[in-house]
Amino acid sequence: MSQVALYPVALLVQKFGGTAVGDPDRIRAVADHVARTVKQGNKVVLVVSAMGKETDSLLRLADDVSSTHPGREMDMLITAGERKAMALMCMALHDLGLPADSFTGSQAGFLTDTEHRNARILNVRPDRVRVALDAGRVPVVGGSQGVSTDNDVTFLGRGGSDTTAVALAHALDADACELYTDVTGVFTTDPRVVPAAKRMDRISFDELLEMTATGCPKPAMRSVEYARTHGVRLHVRSAFTWQEGTWVDEEEPDMEQAIISAVTHDTSEAKMTISGVPDQPGIAARVFRELADAGINVDMIVQNVSTEGVTDISFTVPHDDLDRAMSTAGSLANEIGATGVASDAAIARVSVVGAGMRTNPGVAATMFETLADCGVNIQMISTSAIRVSCVVSEDRAEDAVKALHENFGLSGN
Amino acid sequence: MSQVALYPVALLVQKFGGTAVGDPDRIRAVADHVARTVKQGNKVVLVVSAMGKETDSLLRLADDVSSTHPGREMDMLITAGERKAMALMCMALHDLGLPADSFTGSQAGFLTDTEHRNARILNVRPDRVRVALDAGRVPVVGGSQGVSTDNDVTFLGRGGSDTTAVALAHALDADACELYTDVTGVFTTDPRVVPAAKRMDRISFDELLEMTATGCPKPAMRSVEYARTHGVRLHVRSAFTWQEGTWVDEEEPDMEQAIISAVTHDTSEAKMTISGVPDQPGIAARVFRELADAGINVDMIVQNVSTEGVTDISFTVPHDDLDRAMSTAGSLANEIGATGVASDAAIARVSVVGAGMRTNPGVAATMFETLADCGVNIQMISTSAIRVSCVVSEDRAEDAVKALHENFGLSGN
Repeated sequence: MSQVALYPVALLVQKFGGTAVGDPDRIRAVADHVARTVKQGNKVVLVVSAMGKETDSLLRLADDVSSTHPGREMDMLITAGERKAMALMCMALHDLGLPADSFTGSQAGFLTDTEHRNARILNVRPDRVRVALDAGRVPVVGGSQGVSTDNDVTFLGRGGSDTTAVALAHALDADACELYTDVTGVFTTDPRVVPAAKRMDRISFDELLEMTATGCPKPAMRSVEYARTHGVRLHVRSAFTWQEGTWVDEEEPDMEQAIISAVTHDTSEAKMTISGVPDQPGIAARVFRELADAGINVDMIVQNVSTEGVTDISFTVPHDDLDRAMSTAGSLANEIGATGVASDAAIARVSVVGAGMRTNPGVAATMFETLADCGVNIQMISTSAIRVSCVVSEDRAEDAVKALHENFGLSGN
Repeated sequence: MSQVALYPVALLVQKFGGTAVGDPDRIRAVADHVARTVKQGNKVVLVVSAMGKETDSLLRLADDVSSTHPGREMDMLITAGERKAMALMCMALHDLGLPADSFTGSQAGFLTDTEHRNARILNVRPDRVRVALDAGRVPVVGGSQGVSTDNDVTFLGRGGSDTTAVALAHALDADACELYTDVTGVFTTDPRVVPAAKRMDRISFDELLEMTATGCPKPAMRSVEYARTHGVRLHVRSAFTWQEGTWVDEEEPDMEQAIISAVTHDTSEAKMTISGVPDQPGIAARVFRELADAGINVDMIVQNVSTEGVTDISFTVPHDDLDRAMSTAGSLANEIGATGVASDAAIARVSVVGAGMRTNPGVAATMFETLADCGVNIQMISTSAIRVSCVVSEDRAEDAVKALHENFGLSGN
């Protein structure tokens, strides 16, 4: 499936960040790729995020200077990274004879709310980007930034450059949004665990969303949600090999679907259990409201059936939030009369994802049998319409992934 | 002379840059100084430039990426340095319990022309700065930047942060503008050459302008011109010792003035001579128009009296411009029928500066006698109402400075 064949003269939003623009050589390599794309008759809008690990070093600098990090100032600091990258990218494009103009989030028309460090886009009015395009120039937009309703600089959060690219593709009615990464696309599972893992030519938004939610590293979930809501075609591909990657699009209902598209695993979370919780209406609500108020990102939640008026509530939280979650849950357990709080950091979530699951019963059963056959104990189960996830011991996760990838027929040709 | 005594509750604009904010420790030290100033009842607006040598590394990065450096993109790149510094400064102030808000040049109301890399200020409307001040907050403004009439980010040039500070002090009707540097003030001559050199308590704008024009390293000449035009009192002082420095103000006519305030020397320029120039009207104009069009910063100009219809024109140019100036002058010499072009890079300009010179004849004669007595040959002479400058051989410059500092009575108590 060639994008050039699909769009003889396409408008493409291309996003590059991190290692893809990590040093002057990489910036020139990206400029060269853009020049080729333009020479083929396409129009290109670039979105760049900060070079290499620059955002991390800016955060470290803030730590070195102060223990107080007001959001308004953090956003001013962090967005300096994108400004550098976009100005340098324009210079590299000029060097190839391609006139280019950089635009901050504000100049590119990204109006956001005032939630610093994690602002939401309210509106995108890329008037200046359009003027530059019409004048035959390459607009280069700073990723993950905007201007708030208070006229302050805002940052859309880590991974926000993907969202910038998708939102811009939507606002400009672009033919596709290409997210360049350090991998060649979306794989049926982690190739480091299963060498037979295959790059998918296409995947649906729903499937990719289930994958990003359960450990597939990129693109950022929020950008995929935005793309699905607004019908923006995504192309996840490599900035190092430049080969075609994985297209992400609406499901085509008449298309014959693989039952399972991918197997993912995620070791970034820990499991917590509050046991002996009185089985009364409103208790669960209170538990998760307090955790949310403490800024803890609770993910998978499982509540066992009640026995003798008490129940156990288990859930997963990111490793970084575990200490705070334990202290919040500890005091809460006392107040609500629960008998204990336990945690286990050495867990993994293993998931099978596939839109074909909707019309093929028995996927969950096959998954459980597969895990049983290789002696992997299941600690928690959670399902969606197109995903089944099991929490297992972290040291058995790779065995589970290998067996599932094999058993669901993803390793064959 | 204590500024606190003069202004029990003063509004001060304080500017810090380079080594003064070169690392996290320095940023915290500056924040601490600001907190003390505020605790004494003053209101403070800060202007910061980039940390340490950051502007230089951004310029190097641009060179590494591209040989094409469009001004618009260079300004976007370079101003990232000030953004980092101002955001970090705000965090350090918050850490001390002092609420602070950073403002870009645009947010601080600096409207400029579209001359990228060296934009001129058209208007300063610091409405947001005033609102922050009135709310009891410390505004921290990015130095040397603004927004152009085309809505693009502009850079005011190297040393432009001094201009930002002075312009802001004027717009806010501040009591004084304090320029913090790595020296404790303005000296009667370079203390590295003459250990007996003394810090002046005060100096007039005119005197400081003549000094900055002839090799006194700081503050930037443009900012002093701005301060003189708008009557902004300057205080040049050290960010490392925090002791009182040199106040720069209007001359007080009734004040008894030293005949000579300072001796300066400048080794940053080379001398050029176009010899055998036909002595016709318009020839000098043509020479310096062509040099100006080639972007060469000609400084001191001396033309000898005409003998037999031809004359010699000598002038100085920065070392960096010498090659280009020689090639421009070479082809020009042919066209106008001059006999030759020569250059000498090993020269220094030695100057004596003093407002008292206006009413004390004989300063030039004393200077020439002093140089003759220590065997220093004078190559060029140029004078203004309050300055006499001589170009001498570079290797004799320090001897000349020592003798002049002694003979004009600046080394005594």
